Amino acid sequence: MNQQRIKRVIANMKQEGLSQMIVSSTASLYYLTGLWIEPHERMIALYLDENGRTMLFGNEIFGIAPLEGVPLYVHKDGEDPVRDLASQVRQGRLGIDKFWYSKFLIGLMEHRPDVTPVYGSAPVDRARMLKDAREIEALRRSSAFNDEVVERVIAQVKEGVAENQLAAEVNRLYLERGADCEGTQLVCFGANGADPHHSADGTVIKPGDSVTFDIFIPFDRYWCDMTRTVFFKEAGEKQREVYELVKRANLAAIARIKPGVFLSEIDRTARDLITQGGYGPYFTHRLGHGAGLECHEPPDVGDASSFPLEPGMVFSVEPGIYLPREFGVRIEDLVLVTEDGCEVLNRASKELRIVE
Amino acid sequence: MNQQRIKRVIANMKQEGLSQMIVSSTASLYYLTGLWIEPHERMIALYLDENGRTMLFGNEIFGIAPLEGVPLYVHKDGEDPVRDLASQVRQGRLGIDKFWYSKFLIGLMEHRPDVTPVYGSAPVDRARMLKDAREIEALRRSSAFNDEVVERVIAQVKEGVAENQLAAEVNRLYLERGADCEGTQLVCFGANGADPHHSADGTVIKPGDSVTFDIFIPFDRYWCDMTRTVFFKEAGEKQREVYELVKRANLAAIARIKPGVFLSEIDRTARDLITQGGYGPYFTHRLGHGAGLECHEPPDVGDASSFPLEPGMVFSVEPGIYLPREFGVRIEDLVLVTEDGCEVLNRASKELRIVE
Repeated sequence: MNQQRIKRVIANMKQEGLSQMIVSSTASLYYLTGLWIEPHERMIALYLDENGRTMLFGNEIFGIAPLEGVPLYVHKDGEDPVRDLASQVRQGRLGIDKFWYSKFLIGLMEHRPDVTPVYGSAPVDRARMLKDAREIEALRRSSAFNDEVVERVIAQVKEGVAENQLAAEVNRLYLERGADCEGTQLVCFGANGADPHHSADGTVIKPGDSVTFDIFIPFDRYWCDMTRTVFFKEAGEKQREVYELVKRANLAAIARIKPGVFLSEIDRTARDLITQGGYGPYFTHRLGHGAGLECHEPPDVGDASSFPLEPGMVFSVEPGIYLPREFGVRIEDLVLVTEDGCEVLNRASKELRIVE
Repeated sequence: MNQQRIKRVIANMKQEGLSQMIVSSTASLYYLTGLWIEPHERMIALYLDENGRTMLFGNEIFGIAPLEGVPLYVHKDGEDPVRDLASQVRQGRLGIDKFWYSKFLIGLMEHRPDVTPVYGSAPVDRARMLKDAREIEALRRSSAFNDEVVERVIAQVKEGVAENQLAAEVNRLYLERGADCEGTQLVCFGANGADPHHSADGTVIKPGDSVTFDIFIPFDRYWCDMTRTVFFKEAGEKQREVYELVKRANLAAIARIKPGVFLSEIDRTARDLITQGGYGPYFTHRLGHGAGLECHEPPDVGDASSFPLEPGMVFSVEPGIYLPREFGVRIEDLVLVTEDGCEVLNRASKELRIVE
């Protein structure tokens, strides 16, 4: 149990008016306890109250080793997974973190009508948002691997290649460098790139295709995540115009980053440029997302994020323009907020590149 | 929208006393609408009432194409994702399927204190449990690929190989046969196999290791999932004894499968054998799980599953014995319940194998 982090979470709970809460997400639980448990459809929950009292509830299959000072309640497959938890929580408001399944929450509410669940992710999320020195080192290292991998895979863009071959190659290169696992890598040729979430399939490359690599994986639990777009053999005028506009948006947003500036302002900087360039309706998502123990975690870098940047935040800056049935361009870096500006964790070139 | 399936779900809703419900899980939504949307932290929800009225609510980034007769409510990043949904649901009980995040449920409850959420996965889950002819064909095909892949990877067990190399090889072989994506394959050597959820890491093989492959991936959205355990160079007496006991448990459970028998009875058949063999405490999980559009889906094959088998169910039979710090053995097949018994979808040999 990381007592320093628990203390920060309790301070955040007080700010939210929460006297008790449940932490269930894999990354948050790891952040506080050092246990990495992927529960899938099974139940895991860490209970925490304002006095630092903690209890852990989980399925026996997780094989949880007891943590000092944390009573452990184990249930088996087939037993009511929230029974023990329901008998232990206090009445009144109970913070619930965001990814706990409704299945368990509804079970808890049925046992305990005197408990009022409230959305309670903020205390842990806010603590996790500000990375400590060891976390920053892990994130730097992870992104440095990503810079290597993206160059290696761009070098393999050639006649006859299919999206899913390149995606597999990215995973192979990651594994070679010690990634924790393989992942679903986004590799999009031409019109497929107009869908920001297109998964690599058997599509074979054609001259004039945009080629978007959005590649991400954890190393030692900390994620890298970057996007580069190149063109195969040739790039038309519209492709060049869109590329340069996205690049300018990426660079302008990064140039605005320093403590005190609002997250929404970073999003707006990129969005205004793209809108002025005439492509506003084709930039269909927020500018970015936090990254750390999860690939997507707070803070949201979007127009509703009305709170200021602080040193230690790490998030993506990933403007994109998606033209249905034509092509897509996205350029993404991970960025660390420093005392007086930011450090861009990705170094791979963002110059327009045409590969043969 | 698949009207035939919607009708079955509505009939199931009536049995559960539900007049309205929300379907949010990726696979269930696909089952009913044909749309495959992985929302990650974003919101998607299909509303369905007893009269067949449907509405779809989702983030604009999903790029949902309108479905005939299904009003579509789109929200953007940064907007309240449950606003429209909260304005449309009726008061009273509202079924919620299992994987909807608490974040959205709590938001909905705050908007609508007159709505009582109840656990409502059963109507769709029960429909999905009984596979139709096209689904059965897809599952057969997927498991046939798995039989090929497991043989190919067993042939690559050799001096110097690491778990994660074999896991990567499984993914490569899957992709070669047209799998939808890559996945996290479980490959466990020796003592690592004593943790049923151990992920492949850099562990290098040693003579006398048990080698467990638990490999699973979707082809055309339908999952295969099988486990085979072999031994490297030699198998001691205890390893042989445990292997034969697990194999007998697998075969005995399969032999019991036919319509009308309770799921719990299938679990008990395997469990009793392992208990009689003296290893009861080391078989730490349910016997199996349904498989289809998800790798783990209903039915649960465990001692709490007090309902009978029906033709069209597909589930795993996967007894295992896990000896801490020693080794583990698991043998898993997917099985389809037929009119008068079952069809084992996996054909790969279960004889004890020692590979060089």
